[in-house]
Amino acid sequence: MEDSTTREDGGRTTAARQDGVLRTVAIGALQLEAGGALPEVELAYETWGTLNADASNAVLVQHALTGDTHVAQGDGDEPGWWDALVGSGKPVDTDKYFVVAPNMLGGCYGSTGPSSLDPEGTPWGSRFPFVTIRDSVRAEARLADRLGIRRWHAVLGGSMGGARALEWAATYPDRVRHCVVVAIGGYSTAEQIALAQAQVLAIRQDPAYRGGDYYGGPAPVAGLGLARRIAHISYRSEPELNFRFGRRGQGAENPVEAPGAAAERGRYQVESYLDHQAEKLVSRFDANSYVTITEALMSHDVGRGRGGMQRALAGAKAEFFLASVNSDRLYFPEQSDELARALPGEVPVHSIDAKIGHDGFLTEIGQLGGELRRRVFTG
Amino acid sequence: MEDSTTREDGGRTTAARQDGVLRTVAIGALQLEAGGALPEVELAYETWGTLNADASNAVLVQHALTGDTHVAQGDGDEPGWWDALVGSGKPVDTDKYFVVAPNMLGGCYGSTGPSSLDPEGTPWGSRFPFVTIRDSVRAEARLADRLGIRRWHAVLGGSMGGARALEWAATYPDRVRHCVVVAIGGYSTAEQIALAQAQVLAIRQDPAYRGGDYYGGPAPVAGLGLARRIAHISYRSEPELNFRFGRRGQGAENPVEAPGAAAERGRYQVESYLDHQAEKLVSRFDANSYVTITEALMSHDVGRGRGGMQRALAGAKAEFFLASVNSDRLYFPEQSDELARALPGEVPVHSIDAKIGHDGFLTEIGQLGGELRRRVFTG
Repeated sequence: MEDSTTREDGGRTTAARQDGVLRTVAIGALQLEAGGALPEVELAYETWGTLNADASNAVLVQHALTGDTHVAQGDGDEPGWWDALVGSGKPVDTDKYFVVAPNMLGGCYGSTGPSSLDPEGTPWGSRFPFVTIRDSVRAEARLADRLGIRRWHAVLGGSMGGARALEWAATYPDRVRHCVVVAIGGYSTAEQIALAQAQVLAIRQDPAYRGGDYYGGPAPVAGLGLARRIAHISYRSEPELNFRFGRRGQGAENPVEAPGAAAERGRYQVESYLDHQAEKLVSRFDANSYVTITEALMSHDVGRGRGGMQRALAGAKAEFFLASVNSDRLYFPEQSDELARALPGEVPVHSIDAKIGHDGFLTEIGQLGGELRRRVFTG
Repeated sequence: MEDSTTREDGGRTTAARQDGVLRTVAIGALQLEAGGALPEVELAYETWGTLNADASNAVLVQHALTGDTHVAQGDGDEPGWWDALVGSGKPVDTDKYFVVAPNMLGGCYGSTGPSSLDPEGTPWGSRFPFVTIRDSVRAEARLADRLGIRRWHAVLGGSMGGARALEWAATYPDRVRHCVVVAIGGYSTAEQIALAQAQVLAIRQDPAYRGGDYYGGPAPVAGLGLARRIAHISYRSEPELNFRFGRRGQGAENPVEAPGAAAERGRYQVESYLDHQAEKLVSRFDANSYVTITEALMSHDVGRGRGGMQRALAGAKAEFFLASVNSDRLYFPEQSDELARALPGEVPVHSIDAKIGHDGFLTEIGQLGGELRRRVFTG
């Protein structure tokens, strides 16, 4: 286990740090794509492994919508969300690669977000500006500068993390050697925008939300919980839900018994399950960050202002590795196929075989291990 | 045009009435499946055509979740929601058949529902009991009695209307000659329950809902509007939404421009479209009825308490006519196929070819006209 102190070396912080421990770096002011600005931005991140002498072994891992920086277990006990992919001896081998996982701009896992304090010491709340996927990637480029990483060996992510990986390859062609995009296409579709709108409205319509200025008072847990329910249904396949829950009642509860008021009927198991998913999220996530990042994801469109997806990616120098989940009904495999066709050269789309739906990019990521070792992490 | 007065004839009301005009009938007290009761129930309905002497030409048409009794245009100007199917010279020819369309128990188009007054003259609101699909069908059987209809030539419906049609065939085998079930299976699945829960929560979490006792005050329009958005996405196919709206902004609005607060960004077209769908529904539908009927639809399970779907339908004497919409991702065609396998004999599932998704059971119902004339409405 290494020492957790860092050493500043000519503006470059070399790695002498604990694996999988949260740290933050100030990256200065940021002008934003939508026209706003943030005067002082911090990005939180974790790292695993050691940056080599020529800084050629760095890997950027991007989390999904409600994900965090804890990709792999590291030196603590807490398991990571891509433990099957990242770690000592794993496909992304932290004995060989220096892995960096930042929290997205606007998030609630350490990076500057709506719950952060503005320069006057008040939480941003409703005044937090609109940030896009591109804004986050520009912020992450400054993090790379601070860490002395000129070019990533690989940038990879799934779902919204994949959107950021793709934006990296389009925005900084010289800084990405391999780009791994899992379970997302080149832009958010009308359907994905529609589902996102419902989630954002669920939060905004919660009276506890108070336009976003709820800090110091009760959090809009009902609205955030409803947003999570809507999202979670889309993350799972229809057969998965039906196989697990069917029409069963929860425990002894009878969903078709309500001698008194209708509101007193018992719950179906699937309702109880979604209640649980909602409770888990509201205990760990900030509603404003949920809105901020969801709207950033709505903005995902690698071709915007660049003459469309194909022209936007024509200059990308990365080798691309695409994958989709065959049962995904939120980010359909067809959307990954469309992205592949827009990329220079022949780019195959690897398929994760999972019954679960979109969340297969988390639960079944190990399926990509062999191909990733052969094509991307050969070191 | 016939006279709109009705003639009581030995307890039987024969038809001498205007087509497509709302009327109501009192059917007495109703004990409910879930254990509650309603002391006085009225059902609203419309009719078209004339009941023949032996009452053998009666057809029951069942509306979907937010549908109403106005199936066909009739003598007024207002178009009906199944005009392509029902009317003079149409497949369900009102020159030959006597068509009856009741509003579901719990609804807000004339039948007793949460907005109705209880015996003390107060709206039921939060005290309105839990009603099931079966309760509604039992109420409709009393309507049939009042109209002098012992046996329907056909009972037909799509979506939730199909659930009620199916329940008719299972509950009253001797009273249904043909049963037409479009775009729904034999039970509500875990996924359909999950989507319904989100919609019900959207309404219940609106502070204006006040547990259901909002009459006389502002209605929970935000919650009902959100419920509609969630539902509407599921009624349309993903390609339909993307083809119509893509990532375009609404008019001159720019969804990726918000120099001030994030909440001030422009809308995507698909957001504006769903806003419009929400506004339309809240102007015509009662939130309590939405909750009541949605929970009734969650209860849909023809096999409940009857030894499963196959045994429940073993004694059904109707000739079944099933159809599904090939792009439906709410009531998947597979669920209609499963229902067909549970029915006695060989029952084919007709396919409506539509890109739109579930709502194809409304927009493309004309596709079934030929087969329905050949198999059901041969008179």
